[in-house]
Amino acid sequence: MMADIQILPLITEPADIKLLTYEQLDCLASEIRSEMIRTVSCTGGHLASSLGSVEVILAVHRVIDSPRDHLVFDVGHQSYAHKMITGRYAEFSTLRQYGGISGFPKCAESVHDVHNSGHASDSLSTALGLALARDLNGTNERIMTIIGDASISGGMAFEAMNQIGQLRAKMTVILNDNEMSISRNVGALSLYLGKIRLSQGYTLTRDTVEGHINSWGRVGKTMVDVGEAFKESFKKLVVSGTFFEDMGFTYIGPIDGHNIRDIEETLRAAQDADGPVIIHVITRKGKGYLPAEERPERFHGVGPFDIATGELKQSNETSEKGYTETFSACLMSHAATDSSIVAITAAMCGGTGLKAFGDRYPRRFFDVGIAEEHAVALAGGLAIGGKRPVVAMYSTFLQRAFDQTIINVALQRLPVIFAIDRAGLVGADGPTHHGMFDIAYMIMIPHMTVLAPSGVAELERALEYAFLNSDGPIAIRYPRSPSGPVLTKGAWERGKGVRCRPGKSVALLALGKMVSPALEAAESLAAQGIEALVYDMRFAKPVDVMAIEEAASTRLIVTLEDGVIKGGFSTQVAAALETLVIEKAIKNVPILPLGLPDEFVGQGNDEELFREAGLLPDQIAAHVADVLSKLV
Amino acid sequence: MMADIQILPLITEPADIKLLTYEQLDCLASEIRSEMIRTVSCTGGHLASSLGSVEVILAVHRVIDSPRDHLVFDVGHQSYAHKMITGRYAEFSTLRQYGGISGFPKCAESVHDVHNSGHASDSLSTALGLALARDLNGTNERIMTIIGDASISGGMAFEAMNQIGQLRAKMTVILNDNEMSISRNVGALSLYLGKIRLSQGYTLTRDTVEGHINSWGRVGKTMVDVGEAFKESFKKLVVSGTFFEDMGFTYIGPIDGHNIRDIEETLRAAQDADGPVIIHVITRKGKGYLPAEERPERFHGVGPFDIATGELKQSNETSEKGYTETFSACLMSHAATDSSIVAITAAMCGGTGLKAFGDRYPRRFFDVGIAEEHAVALAGGLAIGGKRPVVAMYSTFLQRAFDQTIINVALQRLPVIFAIDRAGLVGADGPTHHGMFDIAYMIMIPHMTVLAPSGVAELERALEYAFLNSDGPIAIRYPRSPSGPVLTKGAWERGKGVRCRPGKSVALLALGKMVSPALEAAESLAAQGIEALVYDMRFAKPVDVMAIEEAASTRLIVTLEDGVIKGGFSTQVAAALETLVIEKAIKNVPILPLGLPDEFVGQGNDEELFREAGLLPDQIAAHVADVLSKLV
Repeated sequence: MMADIQILPLITEPADIKLLTYEQLDCLASEIRSEMIRTVSCTGGHLASSLGSVEVILAVHRVIDSPRDHLVFDVGHQSYAHKMITGRYAEFSTLRQYGGISGFPKCAESVHDVHNSGHASDSLSTALGLALARDLNGTNERIMTIIGDASISGGMAFEAMNQIGQLRAKMTVILNDNEMSISRNVGALSLYLGKIRLSQGYTLTRDTVEGHINSWGRVGKTMVDVGEAFKESFKKLVVSGTFFEDMGFTYIGPIDGHNIRDIEETLRAAQDADGPVIIHVITRKGKGYLPAEERPERFHGVGPFDIATGELKQSNETSEKGYTETFSACLMSHAATDSSIVAITAAMCGGTGLKAFGDRYPRRFFDVGIAEEHAVALAGGLAIGGKRPVVAMYSTFLQRAFDQTIINVALQRLPVIFAIDRAGLVGADGPTHHGMFDIAYMIMIPHMTVLAPSGVAELERALEYAFLNSDGPIAIRYPRSPSGPVLTKGAWERGKGVRCRPGKSVALLALGKMVSPALEAAESLAAQGIEALVYDMRFAKPVDVMAIEEAASTRLIVTLEDGVIKGGFSTQVAAALETLVIEKAIKNVPILPLGLPDEFVGQGNDEELFREAGLLPDQIAAHVADVLSKLV
Repeated sequence: MMADIQILPLITEPADIKLLTYEQLDCLASEIRSEMIRTVSCTGGHLASSLGSVEVILAVHRVIDSPRDHLVFDVGHQSYAHKMITGRYAEFSTLRQYGGISGFPKCAESVHDVHNSGHASDSLSTALGLALARDLNGTNERIMTIIGDASISGGMAFEAMNQIGQLRAKMTVILNDNEMSISRNVGALSLYLGKIRLSQGYTLTRDTVEGHINSWGRVGKTMVDVGEAFKESFKKLVVSGTFFEDMGFTYIGPIDGHNIRDIEETLRAAQDADGPVIIHVITRKGKGYLPAEERPERFHGVGPFDIATGELKQSNETSEKGYTETFSACLMSHAATDSSIVAITAAMCGGTGLKAFGDRYPRRFFDVGIAEEHAVALAGGLAIGGKRPVVAMYSTFLQRAFDQTIINVALQRLPVIFAIDRAGLVGADGPTHHGMFDIAYMIMIPHMTVLAPSGVAELERALEYAFLNSDGPIAIRYPRSPSGPVLTKGAWERGKGVRCRPGKSVALLALGKMVSPALEAAESLAAQGIEALVYDMRFAKPVDVMAIEEAASTRLIVTLEDGVIKGGFSTQVAAALETLVIEKAIKNVPILPLGLPDEFVGQGNDEELFREAGLLPDQIAAHVADVLSKLV
C-alpha cells in the first residue's frame, strides 16, 4: 500500500500532471497517499478527507490552468494533494508545524491557493466573487470549487447557490460527497443526497458518461441555450437532481470520485456550459488507508499515529483529563438529574464531548450539522419552550452565530449555556481555528455572563454555577488543553475571583488558562524580590471589582488572558478601575494588558505560540519586572 | 376604504375572533387596516407588509389557541394585526413611540408574542426549538410560523428547514409570498417561487382547496404515513413544490392569502399532518391602501404620511442632506473614475443609498437578498478578483457576517470597504435594530481600520480616505441622522483626530455623532469656567495617540461614543493611555467613558434615547462637572 515515491518529486507545477498517462496518474495518486499518510502520521492532520480527495484534485488540475484558473476549496482541510502538486512537496513534512506548511489553503504560501480558508461553506461565495470579477474584467478564467456534502448544507452555501443560480454565473461546483461530515452527516439535504446515491447505485461508468458527454459536446456549443441542451443530454444520467436544478444549477451525477478519467471528462464537458454546473462525485473518506477507511471519523482530524496499526501515538500533552472530557462527564451528571437539559452542537459532536450525551439521551441531543446560526437560534427556541439548552461549539465557529447570540438569546435573557471549547490558541490548525475573539465578542453583549475556568476542576464548578443561575445566558470558555496545575477552589460566586497568592508590589489578574503561567511568573518575580498578588479572576464579565480594588494597592496591575487584548478582559478591568478611581478615589494604578496582540496568530504548538505572544511564565515575569523598573 | 371601527374594540383576546362569521371577519380585516393606516400615518412603521398579512393572521388565530399554541413571526414587522387582536388595540396608537407598543413581537408586551424578533430568517429555528421542546414534554401544542419569501431565502432559514425536514418536526410554515422583500426580491429561490405562481396562475379557488382538503381529511388519519397521503391528495394542486419536498416538507399552494376561509381550512387540514407542512400563500403588499399597493417599497418602512394622498409629511429631522444620501452621491462620484468599484448589499438597497449606483452600474451592483454572510464573503471573492468592493449594510444586520468579516476579509487583508449605515441608535425600530455593537465588534479584528465621521461632509472625506487606502479592510460607521453642525475639516490621516476646541481642564474625546454634543457640552462647561479640550477623534481604530497624550495634560479624559461602552472606543483610548503611562511616563489621568450602557436600548426618538443614556449635551456637561468636582 505504501508506494515508492518516484513521480511526485518530479511534479513542480500542476501543469506537469497534464503530461502523465492515466496509469501514471494512478501511480501518482498512490504516491500522494503514501506521502500524506507518512507526514500526517508524524504531524497529525486532516487525513481522511485528504485521502478521499486525491483523484478529484488531480482531475481538476488536469483540466484547469492554475493560477490563471481558480480552484477554490471549501474548508480546505482536504487540500493536501493540491499542496503536493503545486510546488510544496519538498516542504510537506513541515505540515501544520510552526513556520511550516499550513493545513489549509493559504495565499501567502502559493499562487495556487485562492483564499485563506478554514471555515466551512464559504467557497461558493468566494468563487462567485471571482466569477463576477472575471465577467466584469471580460476575461475567461475557469472557476471550480470543491465542497463537501456537509459544507454545502451550511446556510451560507445556500445563500451563495441562491445567487449563483439566479445570475447563472459560469462555474463548476464539485460536490464531494463522502457521506459524512466531521461526524455523521445530518439534515434533509443529506437524506436527499443519500436517496440520489441509492437510486443511482453508482452506475455511472466511464463509458456512459463519455457517451453522453460526447453526444452533448458536439451539439452543445451551437445551441442558443447551452444549459438547456446540457440538461437534456444528461437527463438519463440524473435520477433526481431537482433540488439543484430548482436552484438554477445544471446537475450531473453521481460520478465515481476515484476515477480520474471519468471526473476529468465530466469536468471538461461541464466547463463549456453557460451557467453553473454541479458535479456530484462520490468519494470514500480515508481511501487507500484501511484504518482511516474503517474509522473515518477518528481520522478526520488526527494526531500522530502508528502507520502499521493506525493506533494513536501517546500524546505529548498532559495525561490529565482534558476540558472536553470533563465537560462531557459533568454535563452527563447534571443531565441525569435535570431532564430539562438539552444539548446542541453544529457538526462538532465528538470534538465538544457531546457524543456520550447523544448516546445516552438521543432525544435531548441535537447535532444540526454545519449550521451555527441555526444552532444558537434553535437553543433560543428550546429555552422559550422551557428547556435548559447547552450549546457546545468551538470558539472560532461560534463567531458565525454572533448575531443570534445577541438577538435570539441575550435580548430575551434566555438561560442558554454556551460551552465554548477550543477557546484561545488551538495549535496546529492555525489562524482560522484559534478562538481569539470570544471573550471580546461575548462581553459586549448585555445580559451575558462570561466564565473562564482555569483548570478542569474549575470547569466543573463553572458548570455548576451555570446550571444554578438561569436568569440569563452564560458563556463558559475553555481551551483545548490546560496549561498546568491550578489550585483555585470553592464554589463560584457571581463576579468573584479567587486570590491565589498575596503580594504587594504588583497584581497579576489572570483569566482561565493564564492563571497557571501567572502563578509561575509570580514565583520568578518572588525570586527577584517582587511580591506579586495573583488572582484567578474566574469571570471575564462581570469582573471582580473588589479584587481590582485590592490590586490597585500595588504599583501595577497586569491582566493576563489568552484572547485578543482589544475589547477583551483587560478592558473590563480597566473600566472597573476607572470607576473606582472616579467614585471611590482609589489610586489610578497603571495597567499592563498581556494577551494576544492585534494580529492573526499562525500555527504551532502551545509553547511556540505563547512564546511569540510573550505569554510564557518567564516572559511575563521579565516583562513585569521591566515595567515596574520603569514606573516612576 | 377607511372603515368604521366597530368589531375591533370588542376583540380583547384572539379567541374572540373564532366567534365571528366570515362576513364579520372581512369587516374586522377592514377595521384593522383602517386602524393600521391611521396609526402608521402618525407614527410611521412597516405598513405595506402589515397590510398584506391581515387575513393570514386572522386565519391562524381562528385555528390555533394562543398562547397555548404558538404563532412565530419572522422579522415580525408584519405583526400589527396580531397585536391588535391580542389585547393591544387600545394602545396601538403608541406604536413605535417611546414607552409604547413595539413595532415587532415582544414577549414583555404580551403572552401571545413568542419571541422578540426583528432580524430575518430566525422564525423556523425558533419554531423548531418550540416543537422539539413540545415533543420532549409530551404535550401537543400547535406551532405555526409566518415567514416571507425574502426571509426564507436567508441561509439560516435553510439551515432550519434542513433539520426540520430531517426530523419531520410537526409544524406549519406559512410562506407569505408577496413577491418582494424590502426591495426587489432576488435569488434563484425567488425565481422558483415565481415559476410556481405563474404556472399555477392563482387558480386555487376555495372550492378546489376545500374539495381536496376534505377528501384528504377523511382518509388521512387512518393511514400509516399521513404525510404521504397528504402529498398524493394534493398532487394536483401542486405544480412544483419539489424544492420543499426535497427538503422534507409537505408543500401546499399557492393559496390566495387574502381569503380567510381558504387559508383557515388549509391550516386546519395541514395541522393534522405528521410532519412539517409548508403552505404557500400569495399576498399583496399594501393590500387595501392604494398608495401602498402602488408603491409597496416606499411603504415598507414609512414615516408619517398624509392618508388621503399617501404623501410623506415633512420630516422633523434636519433637512440637511443625510448620511445615506451623502454616501450614495460620494460613491457615485468615485465609481465614475474607478471602474474597479463594485457595491454589495443584502436587501438594503434603498436604505443604504445604493439604488442610484445599481441603476447606473447594474453590472457592478449586487443585492444578494437577505444573505449577510454571503454578502461579505462575496465581497472577499470580488476583492481577490481585483475589485474594490463596498459592502453597504445596516450595523445591526452586519452582525450576521461577523465571522466572514474576520475570516473572508480581514485575514487576507482584503481592501473591502464596509459602509455601515444606521450605526448607533436608530429610533423607533428599537432594540433589534440599534447599531450598538459595530465599534466593538470591528475594533477587535486585526487589520481592520474603523472610521466614524462626525457629519456628512466628514463622511465624504472618510470615503476619500478609504478609497485611497487599499492595504486592508476599512469600516466606516455613520448614524441614521446627524446630530448637529460639525466643523471638522481637512483630509483624513491614519490614526489622527482633529482638535475642535482647546482647553486645559478636561478633555472630551468624541467619536462620530458625539462630536456635536461634545462641542455643545464644552460650551456649557465654559459657562461654568471649565475649559474643555474637544477632539473629533475620527478613528475608533487606530486611535489618535497624540490627541490622547494632549488630553492627558488635563484633569480628566471623557470619551464619547454612540455605541456600547464595553469593548468600544473608550477601551482603545484607555489602552493607548496605559501604554503612554508605562512607556512615556505620561500622567495617568482618569477616564470617564460615556456611551451606551450594558443594556439593550428601547425604542424612541433620538432625544428620548440619548436622554436615557445621559448623552444629551447638558447631561454630559453636568456629569463631567460633577466628576471633576469629585476628583482629588
